[in-house]
Amino acid sequence: MPEKEIYYANGQFIASDTPAVTLKDLSVQRGYGIFDFFRFQNGKPLFLSDHLERLQHSYRTMRLVPNESLDELAQIVESLILRNKLTDGGIRIIMTGGDSMNGYDLGQTQTFATVQPLQPIADSFPRTGIRLLTRNYQRQLPEVKTTDYLMAVWLQPWMKEHNGDDILYHDNGCIRECPRSNFFMFSNKGSLVTPSNGMLKGITRKNTLAVASKLKISIEERDISVDELDHCKGCFITSSTKRLMPVHSIDGKIVSGELLGKIEQIWYELIQLENSFL
Amino acid sequence: MPEKEIYYANGQFIASDTPAVTLKDLSVQRGYGIFDFFRFQNGKPLFLSDHLERLQHSYRTMRLVPNESLDELAQIVESLILRNKLTDGGIRIIMTGGDSMNGYDLGQTQTFATVQPLQPIADSFPRTGIRLLTRNYQRQLPEVKTTDYLMAVWLQPWMKEHNGDDILYHDNGCIRECPRSNFFMFSNKGSLVTPSNGMLKGITRKNTLAVASKLKISIEERDISVDELDHCKGCFITSSTKRLMPVHSIDGKIVSGELLGKIEQIWYELIQLENSFL
Repeated sequence: MPEKEIYYANGQFIASDTPAVTLKDLSVQRGYGIFDFFRFQNGKPLFLSDHLERLQHSYRTMRLVPNESLDELAQIVESLILRNKLTDGGIRIIMTGGDSMNGYDLGQTQTFATVQPLQPIADSFPRTGIRLLTRNYQRQLPEVKTTDYLMAVWLQPWMKEHNGDDILYHDNGCIRECPRSNFFMFSNKGSLVTPSNGMLKGITRKNTLAVASKLKISIEERDISVDELDHCKGCFITSSTKRLMPVHSIDGKIVSGELLGKIEQIWYELIQLENSFL
Repeated sequence: MPEKEIYYANGQFIASDTPAVTLKDLSVQRGYGIFDFFRFQNGKPLFLSDHLERLQHSYRTMRLVPNESLDELAQIVESLILRNKLTDGGIRIIMTGGDSMNGYDLGQTQTFATVQPLQPIADSFPRTGIRLLTRNYQRQLPEVKTTDYLMAVWLQPWMKEHNGDDILYHDNGCIRECPRSNFFMFSNKGSLVTPSNGMLKGITRKNTLAVASKLKISIEERDISVDELDHCKGCFITSSTKRLMPVHSIDGKIVSGELLGKIEQIWYELIQLENSFL
């Protein structure tokens, strides 16, 4: 790996600490940006086409018009991995509203990509689980992967004070997602339930549903009320960075581990899916 | 005025098109930033101490720790006006979460300031009024002047398609604010009513309340329901950029102009307040 990471900024490769964004850019002035993030392992990006497709959905919904095609973005990703001499890490492609003439109307979309080294996710099942804290909050434009993490970043000290590992957003009692993960629950009838509205549809969420279907687990994509958590048979969250993490407790109440074995099966199948890229 | 505006970035004065923000900055990665904006006229910033006080409230609430004291910021403002050889314009001070080690925890706060030429606001009362469109939306952390204008920028094409000049946010029927202005209504009893919860308290809002009090107008700071608009005797919005604009229509329905004379009185008194700085 070079001394400093090498990033991509609008057609150029730059050192990671080189300023690349002007003060007129709508990301700085108005928080207007989208991104996608994915891991690479042994130099191979995982589920790249899924991530690029979601990126396209995000930039189109936000009316951003990048100069780069999806094929060109895939080449930039490959180039970033090679130039940074990394085998395992994460890549973030960011697109912003660009330099605005009046601080409000969109300018030319700016495309950036950053890279960071990451250890591959451990290959032993994370049995201990994480502690979630619920919070009433609905993300704006939830189906788009915007750069709006204002609330999540702002809540970090609160979360740590209350011994939480992550936050579970609900919209007036209706569970949505964690700031960077999707939420799954085994209902008291043994179905795997996950929200499908008011949240971002993760790539690992999609893979989890595919795997569960293969394992003949009954699936329900529907709203989950906070009250329903008391009677569930197990919960977990999924994300590209964490893959799958069982939930140990929610607001201090221990979550049932009755179907932990099934969660471990899903976790195992997710690794098999990842391995198909290597 | 120099060929390019001169901006401020962390202790340095730079040309406006010089990239100043790195890709690790939490404004670019996570939309984490605050700002304040004010006009200057004849080279004199208007209500500067009010704006700096609100800026301090914003950065403290968001746990940002700038290197610059409020006195130093006032000097930077003065310097920006002189260096840009401008008599009339607007200045925006922006603070961001800085370069984050993990893309989530706050780094060293970055302080930026931009300047733009602006014509002084016309000194004739804007009798025609603006057309508002209501939209169900509650800003997150509404009492802080964050850089989160994702929804406002995203709604611009919708607004123009529907012949609106600005958007009036309500939270499930409870009126809050416009994206960049505060809202006032004369009730059917002739009181001046303005929301005081779930919105940003503007400096021109504060001045308007002071002026209305001086004019012996009865004031109510309370929630306004969307339904109440049908029976009002006039509405207007206030902001540093627009000063005061009467509302012509809301969602296509013409707003009563019964107390337009009182609105003009307030408008006139606001100019007198501004003139006390010149």
